[in-house]
Parts: sequence; structure tokens; C-alpha cells
Amino acid sequence: MRVVALAGGVGAGKFLRGLVRAVRPENVTVVVNTGDDIEVHGLHVSPDIDSGMYWLAGVMDRERGWGRAGETFRGTEELRRLGAKGAWFGLGDLDLATHLLRTSWLAAGMGLSEATGELCERFGVAARLLPMTQDPAPTMISIVPEGGGVAEIHFQQYWVERGGRDDVKAVRYGGSATMPGPGVLDAIEGADTIVLPPSNPIASIGPILAVPGIREAVAARRDRVVGVSGIVGGVPLVGMADRLLPVAGVEVSAAGVAGYYRDLLTAWVVDRADEGLAERVAELGIRVGITDTIMANDLRAEALARYALSLV
Amino acid sequence: MRVVALAGGVGAGKFLRGLVRAVRPENVTVVVNTGDDIEVHGLHVSPDIDSGMYWLAGVMDRERGWGRAGETFRGTEELRRLGAKGAWFGLGDLDLATHLLRTSWLAAGMGLSEATGELCERFGVAARLLPMTQDPAPTMISIVPEGGGVAEIHFQQYWVERGGRDDVKAVRYGGSATMPGPGVLDAIEGADTIVLPPSNPIASIGPILAVPGIREAVAARRDRVVGVSGIVGGVPLVGMADRLLPVAGVEVSAAGVAGYYRDLLTAWVVDRADEGLAERVAELGIRVGITDTIMANDLRAEALARYALSLV
Repeated sequence: MRVVALAGGVGAGKFLRGLVRAVRPENVTVVVNTGDDIEVHGLHVSPDIDSGMYWLAGVMDRERGWGRAGETFRGTEELRRLGAKGAWFGLGDLDLATHLLRTSWLAAGMGLSEATGELCERFGVAARLLPMTQDPAPTMISIVPEGGGVAEIHFQQYWVERGGRDDVKAVRYGGSATMPGPGVLDAIEGADTIVLPPSNPIASIGPILAVPGIREAVAARRDRVVGVSGIVGGVPLVGMADRLLPVAGVEVSAAGVAGYYRDLLTAWVVDRADEGLAERVAELGIRVGITDTIMANDLRAEALARYALSLV
Repeated sequence: MRVVALAGGVGAGKFLRGLVRAVRPENVTVVVNTGDDIEVHGLHVSPDIDSGMYWLAGVMDRERGWGRAGETFRGTEELRRLGAKGAWFGLGDLDLATHLLRTSWLAAGMGLSEATGELCERFGVAARLLPMTQDPAPTMISIVPEGGGVAEIHFQQYWVERGGRDDVKAVRYGGSATMPGPGVLDAIEGADTIVLPPSNPIASIGPILAVPGIREAVAARRDRVVGVSGIVGGVPLVGMADRLLPVAGVEVSAAGVAGYYRDLLTAWVVDRADEGLAERVAELGIRVGITDTIMANDLRAEALARYALSLV
């Protein structure tokens, strides 16, 4: 059984660990958001690719949710001391190895997709990670800066540099003028099941669907698509979806997100806490699954993945 | 009193710490060897610039002789684990901050000289460090590889990657087709005293003198030039000068090196251990100074610097 997951961020990372216990890892393809890729100190940093890779390789920091376990930040602290621009983005000392390798490969002419495959091989990741696109596709956030007016800033500036404190006026996906990365459309077309893990719909999944051709490819396989809500009890399990969903006119609830994905989903998994929303989801023509969605460990994540796959 | 030092490596670092105690640091200009600059993981690494900067900033590892005090190598160890080419060159986690800053500035169009000035300012170095040239000027070493024949490899490959184990057939200075960095010739022409610290004549000073115009500029000021021998008792205090001097037909002794510099020197400082060589040096038309040259600490380095300056 071949499974494709669209992914970005912590929720996806936890889910993927369960998915590769439920399905042979070699049969899992992950299409990853690159909308929050950013150049830091001249290095090409792909936070969602690295997150997926680190979670799948088992080298992630489970508590913090991002980066490497046992990480230190001596280089970044030194860069801050030296007044480096961009040092607001904390690159760990182990993490830097990833960015240095990737950046030197890209500089030598390798594409982001091949570089991702090389890194995954060296990290012992058997699942296949595919960047949604190899082209620059920054997710841009419109905020109201202190002086008034509207400023459009990179997603990482909004979330990391400014700590997500701004009111968001709009989200623009830079990938709308790009093309899908190698293998992405083939994987979606050839998948037995397509999963939308509990990732941020606006910051993680939205950018992937905005790459021309991907939303259409997923929609064409709608009967094989199952999603898992990352909103439980009206609150995102992690991140800032509660601040971004309203910008897209989406209610911050498991039912609201199901509506946002309605043209894509055949089934939608909500937490037991949201059992009361099942009827609203069913009214959208979407099959509802109800289970524990809190992935406290790999076994829970595996159970969730098996349950989600069973709905298609 | 304006002093110019030509420098590269540990001996120069120690001497420079003494020099800026003997002369106001603002009046010291250091022309630095860039012949062992190398690109590692896409980063522009300038070992001798950094060495001079770290020694002058007081953040060097005095025991090891290179790099930062309290350094760790977590990033490089991870790069090794991931099979990165170039991971034989150990970049420390603190040290990486320097290379990341420099490389991103160079990529943005800044020259190596300006980047060096910026770094020195941020490290609180009051002396002025000038790269010998802003152009690539690799020192290349011809060795006899295992299979026979002759192979020309970068100085860092010879010394760091291969541990200096090869017989050296020839040394070629890449800077011979470059031009001196901004300010270099002016500094030499305007100096009251020019010092050749106890650096490796072939690996550190030779590349500087090979940049067109620099040897001539120093020779034109010969009456103001004093050098300090890094060879004591026929042995280099650090490094591999004993293996490189013979390639240039130079005897591995304080007298041999004086002969190598004979067109440049008005005075030459040898260690008390080499008192017996004083007559041979004097026969070259060079004034001989005899003192303790072992710089066990900054005070000893200061005394040595004062003594050397007193000879001009």
C-alpha cells in the first residue's frame, strides 16, 4: 500500500513516525512544505523538510518539537554576539551540519529534491521526502507594523523573529508561480491513500496545495484522501493556526478545517473531544472518524495512522 | 610609531599580542597570509586571518595554537557522521560564526579586506588586519602520491588532511598572479618599522612576499625591516618549516632563514640558543640581535617585540 502524506511541522512529524510503523516506510512518500524555507547567514534552511527528516530519523527534539535532540546553539549565540543579521533564527550546532551540506550541494548545482534525498539517505530515513517545489516559494504574511500601513514579511519573520505577535491581514503563497518538485504529482497519482496529517492548514498544507497542479492532483484522488484535524476542542495542538485560520475565513475548529478541505477529503478524523462536531462534518459529505488524536508517543501515533488509513 | 607586521600562524599570533603591548594597537597593521584560505562546506575559511584576529582579540586557544578558546566541534563531528567531503578540516562551533558571517558578506559583494575589517571591529581588535590580496591565492604543494608521479594539492590538504606526511617536491604560490589587497602597499611604504615575526618562511611569509609588488615594497624599506627567527636550535617552534625549507634550498636554522630573507632584512633576532650562528648572519650584512624568543606569555612576547623594534 502506497501512502502519500502532505506535511509540515510538528504535528506532521509525530504522525509520520506513526505512519511508518503502520505502513512499510519504503511505501511512504511525504510531500513537504517549503514555504517557510529561508536563507539564514547564506545557508538554505528548509525547516519543514528538516523537521520531517529529523522526526523520521528519530533524532528530533520531541519536547521542543523542532530541531535535533541534544542540540546546542553555540554558533548562533556567537553570531548574535557578533551582531549578525538573521541571528534571530536559531540554528543549532548539529542542525548546522544539515544546512551546510544542503547549501554546498545546491551551490554545486544539485536540486533541492535530490539534496533532500541525499540527506535522508545519510540520516537513514527510508521514507521518501519530496519538496513540494524546487523553486523559491516563500509564504508571505501581511501585518500592520507599528507605524501603521501594511507590511508583507516572510513567514519566519512573522513567527520566529516577531514571535507571532502581529495581527495578520493576509497570507500569500509564493509557490503559486512555481511547479511541483520532481515526483510529486506522480506520487499523488499513484498513491493508494493520501493523508493530510494534523498540520497547520494555512502555514503548512496551504502552501503545498498552492503549488500549481498539486491541489488538482489531490482533488482528483479525493476518494482516497483522509485528513486528521490538528484543531482539538477549538484550539490548535501546536502553532498559530488559531491566528491564521480566521484570515482565510475559516472557523478555528475541527469542523471549520474540514470545510476548508471539503473539495479534497473523503474522510476526516476528529478527536473524541470534538464528537459534537461530527454531524457538521458529515453534512459536508465527508466521512467522519472519531478517535484519540493526541500523539503522546509513537504507539499512539501508529494507532492514529492505522485508524486514519482504515477510513479510506 | 607605525609598525607593519607580515603574519600567518601561531608564532605570529603570539608575537602580535606582544607587539600591541609595545606599540599602540591602532598603529599596528598586519598584512596577513591568505595562501592557506580554503572553501570548506561552501564557507570561505581564512585560517591565518582568523588566527591573527583571535590572538589579538584574546579569544584564541593558546594551548592548541589555533581556533577559539573553549571551542567545541559538534557541527564538524556531525558533518563527518553524515559523510561530508571536507569534514577533515575541523571547524569549531564558535569558529563557524566567523566563517558564516564572512561568507555571507562575500556573497553579498563585500571584498575580503572589508569583511576582515568588519570582523575585527566586532571582535574588538584595534590593530588593522589586511589580507595580502583579495584574490584567490592558494599555496599549492607538490607531493609524490602513493601511486607515484607528482600531485599538486592545496596546502591545507597537505598539512591538515594528510597530516604533513608526504615528501614535498615543490611549493607554488597562487598569489603570484594577484594584486596586493587595499592598503597593503601604502602601509608598507608608510611604516616606521616592518617586522617579520617568527612565522613559517615558506608557508606563511613566502605567500605574502609572492604577491606582486609586496616583496619589492618591503625590500625598498629594507633599512626598516627586522625579523625574528622561528627556528630555534635548528627546529621550528611550531609547524612544518623543517619540511618545507629544504624544498626551497634553505637550511633549517636561524642562519638559513636569515639568508632566505637577506634582501629584505636590516636586523634579525635569534634565540640565545643560536648565539653560535650570529657570525654567519652578520656575514650576510644583517645586524644580529640575540635574546629569549620563546613567547611563553604576553609579557615575554612584549619583551621580544620591544627588543626587535629597538634594532631598527
